[in-house]
Amino acid sequence: MSHNVLYAQSGGVTAVINASACGVIETAQRHPEYFGKVFAARDGILGILREELYDLSGVSPAEIAALRHTPGGAFGSCRADLGEPDTHPAQYERLLDVIQAHDIGTFIYNGGGGSMLTAAKVARFARARNLDLTVIGVPKTIDNDLPMTDTSPGFGSAAKYIATSVREVARDLAAMSGTSTKVFVLEVMGRHAGWLAAAAGLAFETDDPPLLLLFPERSFNPADFLAALQLRVQHYGCCIVIVAEGLLCADGTFCAQEQTSSTFGHEQLGGMAPQIAAMSRGLGYKTHWAVSDYFQRSARHLASRVDVDQAYACGAAAITYAMAGQSDVMVAIERLSDEPYLWSLGAVPLDDVADVELPVPPAYIRADGYGITDAARRYMQPLIQGEDLPPFRNGLPVFAQLNFELAVKRLPEWGGKP
Amino acid sequence: MSHNVLYAQSGGVTAVINASACGVIETAQRHPEYFGKVFAARDGILGILREELYDLSGVSPAEIAALRHTPGGAFGSCRADLGEPDTHPAQYERLLDVIQAHDIGTFIYNGGGGSMLTAAKVARFARARNLDLTVIGVPKTIDNDLPMTDTSPGFGSAAKYIATSVREVARDLAAMSGTSTKVFVLEVMGRHAGWLAAAAGLAFETDDPPLLLLFPERSFNPADFLAALQLRVQHYGCCIVIVAEGLLCADGTFCAQEQTSSTFGHEQLGGMAPQIAAMSRGLGYKTHWAVSDYFQRSARHLASRVDVDQAYACGAAAITYAMAGQSDVMVAIERLSDEPYLWSLGAVPLDDVADVELPVPPAYIRADGYGITDAARRYMQPLIQGEDLPPFRNGLPVFAQLNFELAVKRLPEWGGKP
Repeated sequence: MSHNVLYAQSGGVTAVINASACGVIETAQRHPEYFGKVFAARDGILGILREELYDLSGVSPAEIAALRHTPGGAFGSCRADLGEPDTHPAQYERLLDVIQAHDIGTFIYNGGGGSMLTAAKVARFARARNLDLTVIGVPKTIDNDLPMTDTSPGFGSAAKYIATSVREVARDLAAMSGTSTKVFVLEVMGRHAGWLAAAAGLAFETDDPPLLLLFPERSFNPADFLAALQLRVQHYGCCIVIVAEGLLCADGTFCAQEQTSSTFGHEQLGGMAPQIAAMSRGLGYKTHWAVSDYFQRSARHLASRVDVDQAYACGAAAITYAMAGQSDVMVAIERLSDEPYLWSLGAVPLDDVADVELPVPPAYIRADGYGITDAARRYMQPLIQGEDLPPFRNGLPVFAQLNFELAVKRLPEWGGKP
Repeated sequence: MSHNVLYAQSGGVTAVINASACGVIETAQRHPEYFGKVFAARDGILGILREELYDLSGVSPAEIAALRHTPGGAFGSCRADLGEPDTHPAQYERLLDVIQAHDIGTFIYNGGGGSMLTAAKVARFARARNLDLTVIGVPKTIDNDLPMTDTSPGFGSAAKYIATSVREVARDLAAMSGTSTKVFVLEVMGRHAGWLAAAAGLAFETDDPPLLLLFPERSFNPADFLAALQLRVQHYGCCIVIVAEGLLCADGTFCAQEQTSSTFGHEQLGGMAPQIAAMSRGLGYKTHWAVSDYFQRSARHLASRVDVDQAYACGAAAITYAMAGQSDVMVAIERLSDEPYLWSLGAVPLDDVADVELPVPPAYIRADGYGITDAARRYMQPLIQGEDLPPFRNGLPVFAQLNFELAVKRLPEWGGKP
């Protein structure tokens, strides 16, 4: 027994993915009777193929604990995926070599839907080759689009950041609107799912506030939107517009498209805010616009305590599930009640969550398409509860230093591509 | 005696201008032997001309205290200025009528350089007409460009927001840069002064970190910038670029210009981030970009405690100076030492600060033009010290409700324009 653990981070990072890492590492290190060393791959699956594994044995407990309040991906993440075993056999042979060379008994992959597909491929390969490898997925995505889990760690903090920022900016806009700016446009992330746009709805507690949400789940109707905007500005004197980067035009294409290539083959979106702002200016309204981009997923200073707790617990559960003999599953959060928010953890098959994207359900979007419903509030409100500030020193947050050492390589250089 | 106090907010609001309001109101209300009622004009100087004055007598102490942690401008601000007395005499006669109708003995104007000019005009008019009106300015601007004061309330919090956000996003970028995003561009406010760009320099503690600051104080040289960017990406694997909205091209014009009219006659700037991002992509780097816009000045949840304390103290001092018989002055902050940061308040002539804009001094900009010096750190570091979270309820900050009542009008409607 006493095989080693290999943990890796994948996809866009979040404010709390390192809290999951912390949960994995601390829990595994508390059980030397089950686990040998804990390795963390550099840059996700790529680091495994390249045999770049950080050996966390010598890292101080304080430094590991600091991961809990450190945003970003401590070990590097990646936007790269495994091919299929029949078309990319060399990748899998290399994977096998690295796993065996470093005596890996447990592989924990922390990411979103695409990353769970990678984990599922590894698991299928392990089963096909009769390999004694435990594979557990840990959910992560600010997009909140993973199925079979109440939410994904990362979303609650991003939602809290957006709702807080919008609540604050609403005070600014209201103060300026008498003589100056009437409209403020914020572009949020969300390529296919409008959860982060929905989160902005939490900033106000009334039914139809001076706020319009443009969901990727609804095709964009410019004339209808401008009429809705005009109505709010006439009534309230000002209006905030939240636009998801993945807003779709009537023909089903992205309204904004800056660049068509990324390693994943996804378009890199962005630039909706200035477009919507230009439309608003066409109505004669002075308009400001902002784009949150990475801030919404790295703002650890405004993390939701619930989210941090869930992130850590999901990481820790991956280890306890491995100890209990589970494999080929993703840790999932189950909601037991809305208020108080009670939740527990469970395990769902990796194959059932791999590469599935859940949009915001119609019941959460207001009938006119520009707001959220009470059901959406009941769902989201618990996820942003509680604050969990990192330590501040000299006016700024202090994060983990990330002085990790790579384990000595035991294999020849890998020449393949992911 | 016992004349009333009239307070008003002007220009772009900040995360802490209401803390100054709180200082004014609480201090004045503690001295009924000197002051009658406290009024706050709606939308700055415009509210005075329109005789829209909130009577704060009936507002609960708890609601006034809540102003201290409420961003935006509680009474409405304005981007409008008084004309000159000889060209716009009707404005001044109206001002006089409102002041007399509501028995105003003390006028406190809270704003930046343009607003101090308005206050100076009111003061000159009062002196010319032998009016018994005390006029005190309270500094406010995230741009930090007011002269004769160590800093202006609002800047410290905006600086802390930017430095914190950049420190956080640096962790995100570093994690992604192995396989994906190499460059992150943030556009910050700063039309003529690069103080907010400079603040981003605090995010790193090393001399030449993976960070390039594009100051409006330096004319932009695209080729030189791209070479500097390439060098950092090659060395660090990634780089963050901070660009001030007011970046100047070699011909002295703004590189970004979206719309040429505002009430003040200023251009509305914005759109530098996507331009810089496009340049970075030209080098082959996947690039993300963000625009903070109003967030950087309304992020009360990340206010600097020093800034909040100074904002409140400046408001309170305006009242104590009025009691001491001072007038036609702006409250100014004097630095007594860097570390520990010790400061006191003083008064400087309104005429000396009116409409003056101080840029970042050359000694604060690194020789290559893309970073800050130790002197800049020594200056800025004290201003971002300490946290001062607003109360959170149900996951979000709770702000003052702003249920103020307008005083009954005593004059006919005003038909003029500001």
